[in-house]
Amino acid sequence: MKMFKRFAATALCTAMIVSGFSYVQHVNAGPPSHSNAKVENVIFMIPDGYSASYATNYRIYKGEDTVLDSMLVGMMKTNSADNWVTDSAAAGTAMATGSKTNNGMVSVSPEGEILDTVLEAASDAGKSTGLVATSTITHATPAVFGSHVESRGSEADIALQLINDVDVMLGGGKSNFLPKEENGNQAERNLVEEAKSNGYEFVETKEELLAMNGKQDKVLGLFADGGMAPELDRDHTEEPSLADMTTAALHSLSNNKKGFFLMVEGSQIDWAGHAHDAAWAMKDSEAFEMAVEEALEFAKKDGKTLVVVAGDHDTGGMSVGGYDEYLSKVDILRDVTATGDFMAGELNEDRSNARDIVSQYANIKLTEDEEARIKSAAANQTAMTINQIISERAYVGWTSKAHTGVDVPVYAYGPQSDLFYGLLDNTDLPNRIAEAMKIEFGK
Amino acid sequence: MKMFKRFAATALCTAMIVSGFSYVQHVNAGPPSHSNAKVENVIFMIPDGYSASYATNYRIYKGEDTVLDSMLVGMMKTNSADNWVTDSAAAGTAMATGSKTNNGMVSVSPEGEILDTVLEAASDAGKSTGLVATSTITHATPAVFGSHVESRGSEADIALQLINDVDVMLGGGKSNFLPKEENGNQAERNLVEEAKSNGYEFVETKEELLAMNGKQDKVLGLFADGGMAPELDRDHTEEPSLADMTTAALHSLSNNKKGFFLMVEGSQIDWAGHAHDAAWAMKDSEAFEMAVEEALEFAKKDGKTLVVVAGDHDTGGMSVGGYDEYLSKVDILRDVTATGDFMAGELNEDRSNARDIVSQYANIKLTEDEEARIKSAAANQTAMTINQIISERAYVGWTSKAHTGVDVPVYAYGPQSDLFYGLLDNTDLPNRIAEAMKIEFGK
Repeated sequence: MKMFKRFAATALCTAMIVSGFSYVQHVNAGPPSHSNAKVENVIFMIPDGYSASYATNYRIYKGEDTVLDSMLVGMMKTNSADNWVTDSAAAGTAMATGSKTNNGMVSVSPEGEILDTVLEAASDAGKSTGLVATSTITHATPAVFGSHVESRGSEADIALQLINDVDVMLGGGKSNFLPKEENGNQAERNLVEEAKSNGYEFVETKEELLAMNGKQDKVLGLFADGGMAPELDRDHTEEPSLADMTTAALHSLSNNKKGFFLMVEGSQIDWAGHAHDAAWAMKDSEAFEMAVEEALEFAKKDGKTLVVVAGDHDTGGMSVGGYDEYLSKVDILRDVTATGDFMAGELNEDRSNARDIVSQYANIKLTEDEEARIKSAAANQTAMTINQIISERAYVGWTSKAHTGVDVPVYAYGPQSDLFYGLLDNTDLPNRIAEAMKIEFGK
Repeated sequence: MKMFKRFAATALCTAMIVSGFSYVQHVNAGPPSHSNAKVENVIFMIPDGYSASYATNYRIYKGEDTVLDSMLVGMMKTNSADNWVTDSAAAGTAMATGSKTNNGMVSVSPEGEILDTVLEAASDAGKSTGLVATSTITHATPAVFGSHVESRGSEADIALQLINDVDVMLGGGKSNFLPKEENGNQAERNLVEEAKSNGYEFVETKEELLAMNGKQDKVLGLFADGGMAPELDRDHTEEPSLADMTTAALHSLSNNKKGFFLMVEGSQIDWAGHAHDAAWAMKDSEAFEMAVEEALEFAKKDGKTLVVVAGDHDTGGMSVGGYDEYLSKVDILRDVTATGDFMAGELNEDRSNARDIVSQYANIKLTEDEEARIKSAAANQTAMTINQIISERAYVGWTSKAHTGVDVPVYAYGPQSDLFYGLLDNTDLPNRIAEAMKIEFGK
């Protein structure tokens, strides 16, 4: 076989264009080079629900390698103390405290004892701290970094703990900070007023957030009563993007010469996965990537900032392809401009406009069978039915409306990023982050 | 929060035993340390169809960290030249030649031109070469390393090319080497006799293989007419295990002082995935791990051997958990002692013994509904129905009977293993293997 013609595999950039299958590939130069420089700042970014299938589908959706692709350093186990399939509270507790707990519990052990978090350790070391999320800021993943409760549902209790502890909080969930009398939630106290008394600047719109421009060290930004709008539907609101919030948080936190710890959550990738809304998952993955770009830009200029990125678990058992075919058409999701929830809300009472609505917002001409499925869906299953049809068209498979237990990719950039190579447990992350920052934690 | 009780996370080994949820965890010391030593030998091991979900489920099945867990170095894209969801021929071609081709093609470009393989390059450099598989040895994944055909179905043509090129071949597929007259296959020539004339030792049973003990440099071992038996069903045969064949190949190949290149495929993890046979997938993952252990033992003693392990794609869109529950019961698969195919073959004509057969071989007491599903299944869907029921009981989800396109984990051990860190494309693997061996390839 010595004389066969050789084909060079040395091109730095290959464009593959084969009947609609087009993609720009970049040659990966390997992981970031080793550096033992001291880490002053950590930006810990959690795309909730983001497993390797989300990463691969998002690469196809984007049409080229993603920012995270160049940062891959390993993978991570996600199980909780009592279940191979974790929820976000137990997953976040492991990633914040270095200890596993049972599903549903927020930074307390299975026996209810309080577990210190890496955010608290950073605060103890004199650093500023921040939490950014597109869910309520009192939702499981942000909550685990700055509060301790036995049940993730206790969001008013979580809010009370957060405003004693965390310097910058940006996200949704205003109702959890306001008294019960105003809007029927559980809180007894007006935590927004208390936060202002404690020195927090309070902002409620994108415009107010951007105007702040780092002038305040302590900021409470609550941009929605509950969760913020999905990125697909955000244009109709005054809400900032995840990237806007990340940049604003970095402006405020970098005022502290002793450094900072910031956690940024792409909260709704998970919500999209629960809903089997593939377009929402892709658009919120894009919004998360834009936040990562902001973090990387800061870290590159700063040189003393470590960026660590890892999903807390998979949601939905998403696959790339599915339905017994060798095929992916994730690219059609680029034409979807609203969530399934939004489309379902636009249907009239007899759903006779289903064909028009799905054509308008998903650029899909429904078959008669698909139209019939939407019309006959149970009232609470209309959005799920629309999402399932779009998933079938895009060849995005799902095995569950819950989470799954698969290992997830881990990404890192900056000094000490080699601490995150290989297969880690979720409990390793806060310990290695603390090791990188050289702060006392968990010992 | 300064005074909260701290919980140490320093134990080297944690046993979690919570109501049937038991598991031994080992702290990962990070990836193998960097070494620039020259690589004389490469053992390239391909668990066909093995994605992160197989790795996670197999860890649960095993009850402790797997051998591969300590070898994780990164992940790999799997798409072919014409499809985000590859088949094994195109995936193998990328992993053997460094060039992508269309699904179905064996080490030729989409235009049909021959692509040199890393096995051929090793042979050109004076090294010995070997292929081990539990499929036919002419099946797509082994075929791509030593043959070039436009369609993977041309197994007789592949056989003819292999016996001119590869020193050690161990696997199934005897019928593809024998003349048409004997058993109705396509071959015109008796390639077993030709191989013997070319200096190959020919063996057909485990006993004959073990007796050889490295005394021969060229070996053709064909242990079944078609594919070999699934590991779950192997006890009823005279076939060697994948570990037996790996050890035998290493004995013969290490006679060459210039070194060797050996490819070992765990072929049937993929077949189990296509069949949604979770127990078969786990048992063949275990058989593959035992082969990896043989390779590692050799590499550790030798010091000049690089071991690289990567699945070529996911099969079936397997998930860890599924069916809308936060739950995995993969441990029940330990009690399954036969494949779904075997169990289906044991059913009587009216399938009235379904309950007994599934109880005997899967340790599952069927519900009336489950029993009815098996009885009413189409004739060619009986095994699939049994497998689906067992998957539901174990909470192993599936999105497809085909492959899916998710990135897969990459593992490496030995000198130069840091060449495989980060996110790679499947085409990077042979180029980096050749770089590690310092042989001319693809330039």
